[in-house]
Amino acid sequence: MAETDVRSNRFSRQIGYVHCFADKVKRFPGLARRETWKVGKDDPRRVVHAFKVGIALTIVSLLYLMEPLFKGIGQNAMWAVMTVVVVMEFTVGATLSKGLNRGLGTLLAASLAFLTEYIADAPGQIFRAVFIAVAVFIIGTMTSYVRFIPYIKKNYDYGVLIFLLTFNLITVSSYRIDDVWGIAQDRIFTIAIGCAICLVMSILVFPNWSGEDLHNNTVSRLEGLANSIQVCVREYFNDSEESACQDDSSEDPIYKGYKTVLDSKTTDDTLALQASWEPRYLRYCHRTPWHQYAKVGAALRYFSYTVVALHGCLQSEIQTPKSIRALYKDSCIRLGEEASKVLRELAKSIRNNRKFCPEILSNNLKEALQNLNSALKSQPQLILGSRNSRATNTPVQAVQHHDQKLEEDTRTSLPGIKNTGSSSRLGCRSREQSRELTKKVLRTQLSKVAIVNLEFSEALPFAAFTSLLVEMVAKLDRVMDEVEDLGRMAQFSEYEDDGNDHKIVVTCENQSGVASAGSE
Amino acid sequence: MAETDVRSNRFSRQIGYVHCFADKVKRFPGLARRETWKVGKDDPRRVVHAFKVGIALTIVSLLYLMEPLFKGIGQNAMWAVMTVVVVMEFTVGATLSKGLNRGLGTLLAASLAFLTEYIADAPGQIFRAVFIAVAVFIIGTMTSYVRFIPYIKKNYDYGVLIFLLTFNLITVSSYRIDDVWGIAQDRIFTIAIGCAICLVMSILVFPNWSGEDLHNNTVSRLEGLANSIQVCVREYFNDSEESACQDDSSEDPIYKGYKTVLDSKTTDDTLALQASWEPRYLRYCHRTPWHQYAKVGAALRYFSYTVVALHGCLQSEIQTPKSIRALYKDSCIRLGEEASKVLRELAKSIRNNRKFCPEILSNNLKEALQNLNSALKSQPQLILGSRNSRATNTPVQAVQHHDQKLEEDTRTSLPGIKNTGSSSRLGCRSREQSRELTKKVLRTQLSKVAIVNLEFSEALPFAAFTSLLVEMVAKLDRVMDEVEDLGRMAQFSEYEDDGNDHKIVVTCENQSGVASAGSE
Repeated sequence: MAETDVRSNRFSRQIGYVHCFADKVKRFPGLARRETWKVGKDDPRRVVHAFKVGIALTIVSLLYLMEPLFKGIGQNAMWAVMTVVVVMEFTVGATLSKGLNRGLGTLLAASLAFLTEYIADAPGQIFRAVFIAVAVFIIGTMTSYVRFIPYIKKNYDYGVLIFLLTFNLITVSSYRIDDVWGIAQDRIFTIAIGCAICLVMSILVFPNWSGEDLHNNTVSRLEGLANSIQVCVREYFNDSEESACQDDSSEDPIYKGYKTVLDSKTTDDTLALQASWEPRYLRYCHRTPWHQYAKVGAALRYFSYTVVALHGCLQSEIQTPKSIRALYKDSCIRLGEEASKVLRELAKSIRNNRKFCPEILSNNLKEALQNLNSALKSQPQLILGSRNSRATNTPVQAVQHHDQKLEEDTRTSLPGIKNTGSSSRLGCRSREQSRELTKKVLRTQLSKVAIVNLEFSEALPFAAFTSLLVEMVAKLDRVMDEVEDLGRMAQFSEYEDDGNDHKIVVTCENQSGVASAGSE
Repeated sequence: MAETDVRSNRFSRQIGYVHCFADKVKRFPGLARRETWKVGKDDPRRVVHAFKVGIALTIVSLLYLMEPLFKGIGQNAMWAVMTVVVVMEFTVGATLSKGLNRGLGTLLAASLAFLTEYIADAPGQIFRAVFIAVAVFIIGTMTSYVRFIPYIKKNYDYGVLIFLLTFNLITVSSYRIDDVWGIAQDRIFTIAIGCAICLVMSILVFPNWSGEDLHNNTVSRLEGLANSIQVCVREYFNDSEESACQDDSSEDPIYKGYKTVLDSKTTDDTLALQASWEPRYLRYCHRTPWHQYAKVGAALRYFSYTVVALHGCLQSEIQTPKSIRALYKDSCIRLGEEASKVLRELAKSIRNNRKFCPEILSNNLKEALQNLNSALKSQPQLILGSRNSRATNTPVQAVQHHDQKLEEDTRTSLPGIKNTGSSSRLGCRSREQSRELTKKVLRTQLSKVAIVNLEFSEALPFAAFTSLLVEMVAKLDRVMDEVEDLGRMAQFSEYEDDGNDHKIVVTCENQSGVASAGSE
């Protein structure tokens, strides 16, 4: 009886597996179609690139297929096909870097191989075999080791690989074939043909420039961060109900703004490296300092960590009551707006290749800071009791006023924990997080501590929020520096007041006098 | 006269260039030697890997060099050499992934190529040529497009590349050679030999496991963050003179602790992917959940952003006077120590493949939090005047006491800006930053604002520091969750009290009853 049970159990489980698998297979075509469609829709240049590869391959195949061409090149046309497959990359910089690496590696390896053959050209097959084996071992070991050196790994990894490959092919072949020189010549020649086809397709037909990608990425990251800050500060002071509807549609706009910045290091470094291979001086009259873009990216990443911390203030369970927050709403929002305006101004400056005027931006920031400062001074009992109790005239009244408001607040919502509106938004935004919230030990303990001591928990988060806001503005400085340096290095055109926001004409300090036409 | 000047100027500049270049050339050997030495010293496994590649290449060359072996394989031994050069990677996972991709790609391409040849096997050379060209174009375009699909790009990019390569080689060759089947067979066979040599060298001779790297990275990152927090909290409250000497020797220990975490995404993802190819079940009886390690890494990254913000509190110019900070020194340091203890406990748990007890850790954290809480309550005038003025007995005395201390402070150091000790440390730590500090417009303006209004600036940073500390403890939760999940998935052995710290025996909740022997 029990055995039958076990058997039927196992059987039903197997049936389950089969059903699950069949379901997966059934859903696969739809999923694959959607995914395939999305890849092209996200970036139509990908479709173009795919066609470019197809055309390049067809052209290189003609070398083999067409009688007159085949007579010239012969069997070695295969190397050209191989080169096209391996070298053709999405952007011009990547293709150039791979193509030149492949060419250089092959040339160097060929020279070294002939040197080896010249030395090994002694009587005695066994001596030659041993010599070749030893050479292969030594070069193989050394080359593999060299590939670990960061500078080589970064710039010439592929070249060293091809060097090793070619060296081995030629040296080992030379043992049995007499006309190695002919083989090597053919190989170099066909590789050159392959590289040439790749470069022509890559540079002349709808080129994708790594530098342009880097440029656009930097601009869009600056704008993303600006959005993040703006939304973040507004949401902190907003009645949360209206934003709950917004969030339903897509993911959190704050997170969306800074998430690409956080993990941008690898992308930035790769693009900057590829861009440095690109012959951009064909298009502008100066070398664009791509490494400076990477530096701007680093400053932005550093800046974005503060934005993450600021966002953390929104998400934390312990919140300062709305009534207290409302007191400083305007000045905080103003500071946030100014900070995002600065970021947008920097984005505009990079996009238009035009310098910006740091003085104007600093002045606006300074005003906003002073505004917040006076707001904090006029309602000082929140932040500082010790010194301002003397400065303000009626601290007692203010305290009483607050206490009333506080009591109202605590009556309507659970004290210390995010009030109802906020928590509904939270749930709406990230269910996973809210699930985590409910199940966990530590968090509840944290909240308990908070409930017991409303005094401790209630002003601290707001103080942190304000302080982070100020800290963020201080960090903006580094971003501004880097963008300013970029402007100087890339010889952006001089700052011009477009007259939208500021009616005052300001003469900037750093008029270097070089007014190149960096039109894009 | 002027012309001579210009000419001599140009000449001296050229001389300068030559000198500079000669200097670079002169220094190059020393630099290269140091760099080469450092690469091996940092990770001696690299030297071993280089020798492994050398040996593998020598072995595969013997296929060509030794008479009996050459008779069996012939000219195509070259493909084996090529495979070894391309497939041999540093870790087992990477080698396996590349080898299997290469094998699978070749097999699939060969099948498709034969199908194509079967269809193209019609009379008429021109028809066949056109057919082959069209097939190459279509497959080339489709394959290049497919490589953009994230899932394919992540897992099978190299396989798809090799598929395209092999397909083209076979299809195009088939136009002029009749025995394509023979060529394909040889190619598959030699590639299999190459892959086999790589795998044997990789798995059996001093193997480097990606999984082990990932495991160790995770442990060291946890410990690094623990150090960062500890040093950060201590330094915030310390008399800065003594730490100035420490910092002289190497780079900032706080930055060193968290910097590897910040940009760890790419490394983690790559290692997790490679590790998933590794046959670890040969060593343990269960599948290790490598993607969970990547999740722990993501939680750690998220956690580290708060640590960066905390570090920012140390570096910001506006500082709360030491006298005020001293009041909460002990409880803040205790909370920081507890947080780093939790991280170290998690590191130990992962290192020993043993579960940890979240209850003990949470309890300690809770106690430390409550301790800080009561400290803040007993000296409430700093953070909150409004409510605690009723709770404490002698607020006036406390205020007077503070004011005295404050005045002492402001007499000895510039108010609002970091006091002497801290600023000397700052200068010592990162000269670049301090240079930036002095030259910039915005920062001075910020400080001016701070000097004008000591009240605003002075308590806010400390409140932010405390709040970030609390926020950090709350975020620790997610890290603990992920490590707990990891423990469950990887079937860590049950928690055992080692009796060093806690004398109480605690029974953990999640006793799943599976006590596997995860010995490493």
